[in-house]
Amino acid sequence: MNDWMGEDESQEIHKGLEGIYFTESKICKVDGQGGRLYYRGYPIEALALKSSFEEVCYLLLYGKLPNKPELNNFISGMKGERSLPKEVINLIKETSGRAHAMDIARTAISILPAYDKNAYDASEEANMGKAVKLISKLASIVAAIGSSSRGRYTAPDNSLSHAENFLYMLTGKKPDKEKARLLDTMLILHAEHSSNASTFSSLVTGSTLADLYASVTAGMATLKGPLHGGADEAALKMMKEIGEPENTERYINEALNGKARIMGFGHRVYKTYDPRAKIIKAELELLQNDASKEVSNLTRIALTAEQLMVEKLGKTKGIWPNIDFFAGPVYTWIGIAPELFTPLFAASRVPGWCAHIIEYWRSNRLLRPLERYTGQVDLEYIEIEDRE
Amino acid sequence: MNDWMGEDESQEIHKGLEGIYFTESKICKVDGQGGRLYYRGYPIEALALKSSFEEVCYLLLYGKLPNKPELNNFISGMKGERSLPKEVINLIKETSGRAHAMDIARTAISILPAYDKNAYDASEEANMGKAVKLISKLASIVAAIGSSSRGRYTAPDNSLSHAENFLYMLTGKKPDKEKARLLDTMLILHAEHSSNASTFSSLVTGSTLADLYASVTAGMATLKGPLHGGADEAALKMMKEIGEPENTERYINEALNGKARIMGFGHRVYKTYDPRAKIIKAELELLQNDASKEVSNLTRIALTAEQLMVEKLGKTKGIWPNIDFFAGPVYTWIGIAPELFTPLFAASRVPGWCAHIIEYWRSNRLLRPLERYTGQVDLEYIEIEDRE
Repeated sequence: MNDWMGEDESQEIHKGLEGIYFTESKICKVDGQGGRLYYRGYPIEALALKSSFEEVCYLLLYGKLPNKPELNNFISGMKGERSLPKEVINLIKETSGRAHAMDIARTAISILPAYDKNAYDASEEANMGKAVKLISKLASIVAAIGSSSRGRYTAPDNSLSHAENFLYMLTGKKPDKEKARLLDTMLILHAEHSSNASTFSSLVTGSTLADLYASVTAGMATLKGPLHGGADEAALKMMKEIGEPENTERYINEALNGKARIMGFGHRVYKTYDPRAKIIKAELELLQNDASKEVSNLTRIALTAEQLMVEKLGKTKGIWPNIDFFAGPVYTWIGIAPELFTPLFAASRVPGWCAHIIEYWRSNRLLRPLERYTGQVDLEYIEIEDRE
Repeated sequence: MNDWMGEDESQEIHKGLEGIYFTESKICKVDGQGGRLYYRGYPIEALALKSSFEEVCYLLLYGKLPNKPELNNFISGMKGERSLPKEVINLIKETSGRAHAMDIARTAISILPAYDKNAYDASEEANMGKAVKLISKLASIVAAIGSSSRGRYTAPDNSLSHAENFLYMLTGKKPDKEKARLLDTMLILHAEHSSNASTFSSLVTGSTLADLYASVTAGMATLKGPLHGGADEAALKMMKEIGEPENTERYINEALNGKARIMGFGHRVYKTYDPRAKIIKAELELLQNDASKEVSNLTRIALTAEQLMVEKLGKTKGIWPNIDFFAGPVYTWIGIAPELFTPLFAASRVPGWCAHIIEYWRSNRLLRPLERYTGQVDLEYIEIEDRE
């Protein structure tokens, strides 16, 4: 029986859909063997060094680097979307501390169409506008969730860059230029990563022709899962448990002997050193003597642990540090609390989700795989009085 | 290269993941060739005739029909979860009329963890409790969205069944028993349908070990898409355009000659008469002489159109009516406005989503298929001043 509509018991079950290709894409190349990552053909190293998050958003959405007027226009558009509807600010205040920050951020994204008069315009032009809105507003939402612990919302400042403004809204203070620069790099490194679970999820939703808000809401729902987001938070927790740099070797040895998993090592795609981790490691090396004891300790622990792990696992078993391993100490230096790591990941990844959804819609196909039924059939419905 | 982590250009691309099996399940058998549907092994006809939505929810979640104490206990649990947090009621009031009802319902579900002290307990027992909460509260949410057009929220009445209470909260009036019975049947018929797009979407989210609220939020995001939900609304719109029963034949012939698609006909799985449509058709035949001119007209139009379509397309091309074709006139009789059809579909399907997610978690595997990169690599980053 060749008809896929019926169950075909000769067909194998592809658990996790591993190894199954479901579409073509021109957005991102992950070379897991070579340890290379490209956005729209550009190596991640060049983008991290020379570009800005704003420019990378343009690149991902439009497929090319912008010229000066295009970039200026795009940045103006992003700035114009930084403010939040007062209802969304109230929602964040009401639920702050009552729910996981990702639940709050997801809900805030989910309700945005109520405040967008073009919410249901399905043209590609309108969707590009919605993508800009989502990128800008999600950063403001995450900053507002973070700032709610201070008890007040700080309105955006359009004299600042995207990364600077995020820190300003988060802290209520003019940001340190160097911290904003490193945050900008982190945003670039997290902006896109092929068909990872959250991107795939947003495509599943988008493939029913649900709108961009619905699709991004699904991506956020999926990013919440600890098998996807959250490893940076877990790795930082381990570093804090280690406490002092001189405890690192004993802790790592004990963990390895006890077969405990060390978060931030190993990756489903990279079989070599994650190129993003290399970039963050170079930044981290500059923070070893930071004035903050917490930052210098965490940094030294991270670098010592990494060295040990590379010796013991990387060179022998191909288990290398990934982007999540070094992120915690970097975010700590920047001044971002652990509970914001995953929401910030979402705020970084939203251009990737939007670029994928918009690309997929150009040759849309409903994503609807099959499950094999292994239960019974034709059971007799017994009246409730006669049931055991 | 056998390693799935790398791109393998010899692998075929499975567009839409059509024909690909991704898991086993014991929940639902859809026999698209035979026109048969089973929930946990029980034929849909027996459940529609003899069971209740509450019992079907138990059956889907626990895999067996409950005995009397089990059912009573389950119903008590459902009743205990009907009320909504005042913040959710306010959210609905604030956004009503500003956004699509599905956007509002999705957002209301998304924020529920803020009001559930067990929201992040990942045990199966806790998840069964969350499933009951989601089933009960989503019905209340949809009713509250519907009642917001009247400008007031009606609190639940625990002397009523689930379907009766939905109509009571929607209209503010004690419901007609016969309308509530037919609504109950509609809820049963929509409760589950194997790995359709929204169920698959909720599994993609759940497979990252995101919680049940996140997973159901993703399912709702996906159900919004017109390629999944919404065909019942579109079919009703067509019937309203036809206006009078005697116009039906001309309209259908013109539509068929113009190759226009008639909504509610054809199905990706059923290659014969959808067994759910048969059940609704039998109910509809009783409404042909309803006192309401609107209902009797719609009913006659639906039945005439169906007869013509079965002659012209069913018997020759295998395009048969599906569940969505007859739903509109039935919901109109019950007193449900078209904009609530898809939210009501969600309120019916939520037990199916929850049953699937809980089953999947017992042998979880991250759902992460691959995309084939077809873009360029190693492009040179040109400084902005030098770009065209």
